[in-house]
Amino acid sequence: MNLVDGVLAGDRLALSRLLTAVENDTPAGRAGLDALFARTGRAYLVGITGSPGTGKSSLVNRLVKLFRNPPDGRPAWRVAVVAVDPTSPFTGGAVLGDRVRMRDCAGDPGVFIRSMASRGALGGLAVQTAAVTQVFDAAGYDVILIETVGAGQAEVDIASLAHTTLVVEAPGLGDDIQAIKAGILEIADVLVINKADLAGADNTRRALQTMLERAPAKPWPARLVSTVAVSGAGMEELFWAILDHYQFLKSSQEWQRRDAQRLRAGLDELIRAELVRRWREDTPAEVYESVLNRMAGRKLSPFEALDDLLTTRKQAAA
Amino acid sequence: MNLVDGVLAGDRLALSRLLTAVENDTPAGRAGLDALFARTGRAYLVGITGSPGTGKSSLVNRLVKLFRNPPDGRPAWRVAVVAVDPTSPFTGGAVLGDRVRMRDCAGDPGVFIRSMASRGALGGLAVQTAAVTQVFDAAGYDVILIETVGAGQAEVDIASLAHTTLVVEAPGLGDDIQAIKAGILEIADVLVINKADLAGADNTRRALQTMLERAPAKPWPARLVSTVAVSGAGMEELFWAILDHYQFLKSSQEWQRRDAQRLRAGLDELIRAELVRRWREDTPAEVYESVLNRMAGRKLSPFEALDDLLTTRKQAAA
Repeated sequence: MNLVDGVLAGDRLALSRLLTAVENDTPAGRAGLDALFARTGRAYLVGITGSPGTGKSSLVNRLVKLFRNPPDGRPAWRVAVVAVDPTSPFTGGAVLGDRVRMRDCAGDPGVFIRSMASRGALGGLAVQTAAVTQVFDAAGYDVILIETVGAGQAEVDIASLAHTTLVVEAPGLGDDIQAIKAGILEIADVLVINKADLAGADNTRRALQTMLERAPAKPWPARLVSTVAVSGAGMEELFWAILDHYQFLKSSQEWQRRDAQRLRAGLDELIRAELVRRWREDTPAEVYESVLNRMAGRKLSPFEALDDLLTTRKQAAA
Repeated sequence: MNLVDGVLAGDRLALSRLLTAVENDTPAGRAGLDALFARTGRAYLVGITGSPGTGKSSLVNRLVKLFRNPPDGRPAWRVAVVAVDPTSPFTGGAVLGDRVRMRDCAGDPGVFIRSMASRGALGGLAVQTAAVTQVFDAAGYDVILIETVGAGQAEVDIASLAHTTLVVEAPGLGDDIQAIKAGILEIADVLVINKADLAGADNTRRALQTMLERAPAKPWPARLVSTVAVSGAGMEELFWAILDHYQFLKSSQEWQRRDAQRLRAGLDELIRAELVRRWREDTPAEVYESVLNRMAGRKLSPFEALDDLLTTRKQAAA
């Protein structure tokens, strides 16, 4: 049985092997993505982002259990968790958290957890994450929780990947966090104040509430929810806020719009990577190195070097 | 007088206008970078990175004063500060901090402060930051402090831009920070525990010390310094640790190696952006949109779309 058939038959080992192939961008990985692509577009992608120390992992663990056993008695969702750690480009930081999580959900066949810590061969972590979610989507997982250590570009990338974006805050993470919140409001569908039992939680909530009230009107104004993930307090309210946003997306054009936006971003990244790959293939290494040497000697500016490599030589070859 | 002459003559308004032109990637900005490039390579680039709440801005303010007035009576350095806030892609978060800083150093002609919050036209914030530092370098600034809200890729980019990288930590920023530290050790030349008067500082120091002792031997083992930037405690020790690293770079091949590495990264980014720009110019928008539509309808996978746009059409055109 090939990997794709295995994945469609629910074989977890086949799924795990295909995910590895996709992450490493092997021919088998690309073939798998091609074969599965027609079955994608159904899974609900929820991004969870926030600074270190906000308790995202505990929150995700609680959400997994709620999706597996919804409080209103509705059927369980099949849940995949993709833990992306862009802060560990060198080492397997995320893998550690993975083991802790594994222990929690061990034995539940409706849950699959995957950590991604390394930078992808496939043109960057965002593309790699998108590809991994496509595999889970085609494999029939109903909801995919994408957890990332939030900061800057990674947050924005997650927001453009997910249907619903949760931004997790915690009280007392410092003063310059204010600067961050301004940007966060633009991507958050649900704002979570976790560790809401800590001192300062009321201040944090008031500050965020004020910012939300001052934000421009939107079809979906960001929801604010306080939680204590370790005890479970507020988690059901958070779960319903997420499902409200799901209903909002499904009942508007927003679901399709976000799908198209995601596909566009992914295609652009593939094009970028392929253009660079082809250019490298066409450019002798010694030519490139000689241009760099002249730059290091300040004989050639970067723009002159660009012109030399992309225009002059192309004309000479023509 | 044109902008470049103005910059070389020490005209602050001309400098400010050229920086804006460079950030917006205008023809004048590119011409300015070209004209100034031969004068670059002298400035000492110091990156300061760390999570929100670690007190980086106060630390940078103190460092500016120390470089302006070195404790051993040596001549003052001319100091530029580039405050990069990749967490505020939408709004001017960094500008706020800028005003606070401005007040502190107002009237000192040997200090120039520049904030960058927006995503650059010039192929990403890292390239834009590198270009801005080139202008300061050519303008005769001796040291350029590059402050960034650290996280993941941004940190790695700063590390490849700077000669010396400071990673700032603070006690008690949460548990999953452990995962981050593993990656941080790879880029830190100096590890700063700021807010060292807070509870838990000893634990943080011990944990970092242990990690440093277990790290593989390096020509420059990362230095560990405790500070309280708001009071100034430990700041002189930090200043000397930075200058020790400066001496280490100058007395080894490391200064040249980091310069070449920085130029390479910048050139690669320019090439990438230019290849994409040319491809977009050559590809009719309706062709691209029609491919995207077939993707959204799951008629075409991303790799098939890539092949369609980059290979099939190219062959048809040939």
